Amino acid sequence: MAVVVQKYGGSSVADAEKIKNVARRAVAAQKGGNQVVVVISAMGKTTDELIKLANQVTDHPDDRELDVLLSTGEIVSSTLLAMALKSMGVKAVSLSGAQAGIRTDAVYSRARIRGIKPERIEKELGKNKIVVVAGFQGVTEEMDVTTLGRGGSDTTAVALAVSLGADRCEIYTDVEGVYTADPRLVPEAMRLDEIGYDEMLELASSGARVIHSRAVELGEVYKMPILVASSFSDRPGTLIHGGAPMEVGNKVRGIAHDLNVAKITVIGVPDKPGIASTIFDPLAKANISVDTIVQNASINRITDLTFTVAKSDLAKAMKVIEPVVKSIGARETVSDTKLAKVSIVGAGMQSAPGYASRMFNALHEEGVNIELITTSEIRITCIIDEARVDDTLRALHRAFELEKAE
Amino acid sequence: MAVVVQKYGGSSVADAEKIKNVARRAVAAQKGGNQVVVVISAMGKTTDELIKLANQVTDHPDDRELDVLLSTGEIVSSTLLAMALKSMGVKAVSLSGAQAGIRTDAVYSRARIRGIKPERIEKELGKNKIVVVAGFQGVTEEMDVTTLGRGGSDTTAVALAVSLGADRCEIYTDVEGVYTADPRLVPEAMRLDEIGYDEMLELASSGARVIHSRAVELGEVYKMPILVASSFSDRPGTLIHGGAPMEVGNKVRGIAHDLNVAKITVIGVPDKPGIASTIFDPLAKANISVDTIVQNASINRITDLTFTVAKSDLAKAMKVIEPVVKSIGARETVSDTKLAKVSIVGAGMQSAPGYASRMFNALHEEGVNIELITTSEIRITCIIDEARVDDTLRALHRAFELEKAE
Repeated sequence: MAVVVQKYGGSSVADAEKIKNVARRAVAAQKGGNQVVVVISAMGKTTDELIKLANQVTDHPDDRELDVLLSTGEIVSSTLLAMALKSMGVKAVSLSGAQAGIRTDAVYSRARIRGIKPERIEKELGKNKIVVVAGFQGVTEEMDVTTLGRGGSDTTAVALAVSLGADRCEIYTDVEGVYTADPRLVPEAMRLDEIGYDEMLELASSGARVIHSRAVELGEVYKMPILVASSFSDRPGTLIHGGAPMEVGNKVRGIAHDLNVAKITVIGVPDKPGIASTIFDPLAKANISVDTIVQNASINRITDLTFTVAKSDLAKAMKVIEPVVKSIGARETVSDTKLAKVSIVGAGMQSAPGYASRMFNALHEEGVNIELITTSEIRITCIIDEARVDDTLRALHRAFELEKAE
Repeated sequence: MAVVVQKYGGSSVADAEKIKNVARRAVAAQKGGNQVVVVISAMGKTTDELIKLANQVTDHPDDRELDVLLSTGEIVSSTLLAMALKSMGVKAVSLSGAQAGIRTDAVYSRARIRGIKPERIEKELGKNKIVVVAGFQGVTEEMDVTTLGRGGSDTTAVALAVSLGADRCEIYTDVEGVYTADPRLVPEAMRLDEIGYDEMLELASSGARVIHSRAVELGEVYKMPILVASSFSDRPGTLIHGGAPMEVGNKVRGIAHDLNVAKITVIGVPDKPGIASTIFDPLAKANISVDTIVQNASINRITDLTFTVAKSDLAKAMKVIEPVVKSIGARETVSDTKLAKVSIVGAGMQSAPGYASRMFNALHEEGVNIELITTSEIRITCIIDEARVDDTLRALHRAFELEKAE
């Protein structure tokens, strides 16, 4: 019998009615002739409430204890779903991350899965049970509870699908799949029937929030097909897989945007070897991801260095580089937070020229100024004024004719 | 170094401030030169809220899943206490029942502790940590979570104290110890400095709610001294132990009362051998405890059978015996819920006569009618009108001169 792993996010289990809805969907999958494993997030705002509780006790909650505390959110929702299933007359059992055999390293709050011991799940599936696994959590060799950090439940689902030899992993959320652009901003955006891992990775990293890039990466490594679909409808969703059609006519597949962008410019940097690492090493050590980096041509051995970080990391980043900037004798540091990132993504772009100029032309015609540019083989990203994001998305959607059916 | 196990109930950890208070007390115990294990209940109303959540999903929550759900309440409070301790610069770690090695049978919602594997606790104590254990829970051989039912956290604490070879087990609650009577009803009630296990067992079973009889039983079997004291003051509390002074002058130690009493009378029962078990077997099977049983002398081989159950079990009990009463040809069943149980307890009573008559006289002088009487070697209990409980307690307190210091 085929194994299917389904994952439901926090908004899909926000209350008792929604939990019953998830139960009905899991039962339908079982009746379709599958062994069903359901990975579940914490209900709605549970995680925020638990963090609030911790902050009432101390300003700096201990990492290990916070992980145990947060892990209870997914345990609560997993037991409620198992109860709902059993009250429908279906055999079911909830398992914590530890019981499900999800072994991680001991890096609290952002642990990585080291391996899965699926014996307990397999035993329960063998008894014809629907197995409900608390997402977002695992356990160290010492049997201490860890949480997996951002994208944790998506990653749990894909990892379980791989270790159970599932046919596919299904990620259910509050949108109906992967779109050519955010349909709230671009009404003519189209849902994609399928997309390649690489493209999905670039879209996810560039701001499309439908699935976390970490889960897509894992799917790609193990060639696990991932379906992204709505938990509130029966529409088909988007299949992320390795066998996406090659050489499709329109090589831009989607447009992503991200408002969580801040720009930092260090002015008057002496242009000496090693100066970049002097600035970026402390940021890396403080766990701040630096995105785009641009160094202007130096004049009299003095240059400006510009880079972007997540807006939410800006205050921390400024604090980290302040002493560095002083120590290297740079003039000053300025920051800008009214920015956004807009990216076009498509696997075919690497072999066909002209995409960049088509993008820049569209922005130029729309009167949008480009602050910074960064590219990968299958992505071109422009940093622009955040007030112009909506116009820009629509202009690019038109320019690359994404409203046309695949 | 001596090991001390402290247990704090739900009202002692109801909010962040109270959790910090518990942290300070645990640290003081450690500074006093002890290795400290803290067993903790769920915060205030958490358990009720989790049950409500389950009832939103289904009218009949599955036992196994409900146990996992409820166990999260104690995990939450244990992590918050560990965070509070660490923020005070003290080494600490929270452990679930499973991590603490508390092994139980698989009887969900009222599991019994089979044994404790204290290696993890001992390892953490060896690192000079205060170990915070989630009370009320354990784990089966299959690593499925169970809860221990009523008195579960008290029982966890005593069991851990025994298995760790602790000097004593300290139960902290919202009262200052064991009193000669409930001080809310009898203002002149006195706190006892010490009390024997047997006396405490009778008091606890007769309505004194300061500690659960199950925990006292365990303490008695393993001769573990148990201190009951307030978590909100530094008063000395009451020590429950086996070495209570023998042959003390006043042999009544305390008066307990219980309003959770209902009386059932089956009228017109044919007086045949085996009739009692025909009635009481189904009640036992339905997990209903029957307390006092009185059978009147039979007239023409017809008798009346009266017994008491907890008021909260009355509806269930009536439903269980209805078909039985019909099948044995009894006339009818009546019930009364406006009753209370008042008990005098003292280890010396067994060897000195006259206590019963002194009790009955006191009630008679107060004009209180006695509905039923039951006794043990060290206890005499009268079932009376619940409206007369306050008068009765005060009259008995005076009659046995309990307001005088020990």
